[in-house]
Amino acid sequence: MPHFTLEYSANLDGLVDMAQTVEVVRKAAVETGIFPLGGIRVRAIKCEHYAIADGGKNYGFLDMVLRLGEGRDLAARKRAGEHIFRALSAHLDPVFANSKFALSFDMQINDKETSWKRNNIHDALKKVETVHG
Amino acid sequence: MPHFTLEYSANLDGLVDMAQTVEVVRKAAVETGIFPLGGIRVRAIKCEHYAIADGGKNYGFLDMVLRLGEGRDLAARKRAGEHIFRALSAHLDPVFANSKFALSFDMQINDKETSWKRNNIHDALKKVETVHG
Amino acid sequence: MPHFTLEYSANLDGLVDMAQTVEVVRKAAVETGIFPLGGIRVRAIKCEHYAIADGGKNYGFLDMVLRLGEGRDLAARKRAGEHIFRALSAHLDPVFANSKFALSFDMQINDKETSWKRNNIHDALKKVETVHG
Repeated sequence: MPHFTLEYSANLDGLVDMAQTVEVVRKAAVETGIFPLGGIRVRAIKCEHYAIADGGKNYGFLDMVLRLGEGRDLAARKRAGEHIFRALSAHLDPVFANSKFALSFDMQINDKETSWKRNNIHDALKKVETVHG
Repeated sequence: MPHFTLEYSANLDGLVDMAQTVEVVRKAAVETGIFPLGGIRVRAIKCEHYAIADGGKNYGFLDMVLRLGEGRDLAARKRAGEHIFRALSAHLDPVFANSKFALSFDMQINDKETSWKRNNIHDALKKVETVHG
Repeated sequence: MPHFTLEYSANLDGLVDMAQTVEVVRKAAVETGIFPLGGIRVRAIKCEHYAIADGGKNYGFLDMVLRLGEGRDLAARKRAGEHIFRALSAHLDPVFANSKFALSFDMQINDKETSWKRNNIHDALKKVETVHG
């Protein structure tokens, strides 16, 4: 945790650098201070086929879902979500200026009773801290 | 809102036009009358790797998930879901006739407390209405 | 039901056979004994763009979500999840040995009131049973 999955219309590729976009989300997630660094995973999935609104061919979308673990209250989740959405939205200003576009972001909470993980990135980060700390 | 995401086995590409498929879902969603036009986003994601049932190589699947906002009662959601599923299922009749295939559709409701959006398609649609109205 | 969706960082392609990976999950799901054989659908989605942890370029991830139907108690779901995760994790041992990697698995339960399906694989499996039975 946390998992950020971005689904986007393929026509966005000409308008925005998607490698940069996932990095914008990652940085904003770190800045919230509520997520363990080693658990942050942001990814984007390009959708070649899509149909939007009245079917106009020039529309685009990016939809982000965050799945996170239990244990953070609503106020903390709202503050974090607001911060991340603002960063992503600002990054996409040029897209809004140049096209008809829909951006969205929703959160889901994973049930800790049915959640499994294995992760050696946490340890790698600790070693980095030790070396550089 | 609403968001329709279709995941499908790559072998479906030879059997059905996926651009047409997302359009079938979009039209059916509009016909339900319960969604704001400018918020409808349908997309399809091709899955190159999949394993189905007993592992037979010729099976296929299409699984659709709708994420929608709060505020519609169960009866309205069931009626809308039934209508959309019927349209999608009829569109895929040739696939069922010619292959072993699993179609599914589930709904999820987004928490309005942790939902953010920015969308200039709504405004574009209003302008179209004004010009043509 | 059940639906297993694996999202993974594209750099995993050089480290693991993804066709084999979805098959490992399918087999483990069958072994749990709690799923109808004809309903099992496992698929993987490659994510070309991702940003992980502190942004290090060599990290990887695989995140699996299982969506299943209502009607299985928590103990049964935990036992099944544990079995499937163990199989997947063991399969990915070489990835953990050779890279910084994050594996995760979460379950979601679909609302049976808003769930639609059409599936001719169940029948195909029955015919196979009859012929070979």
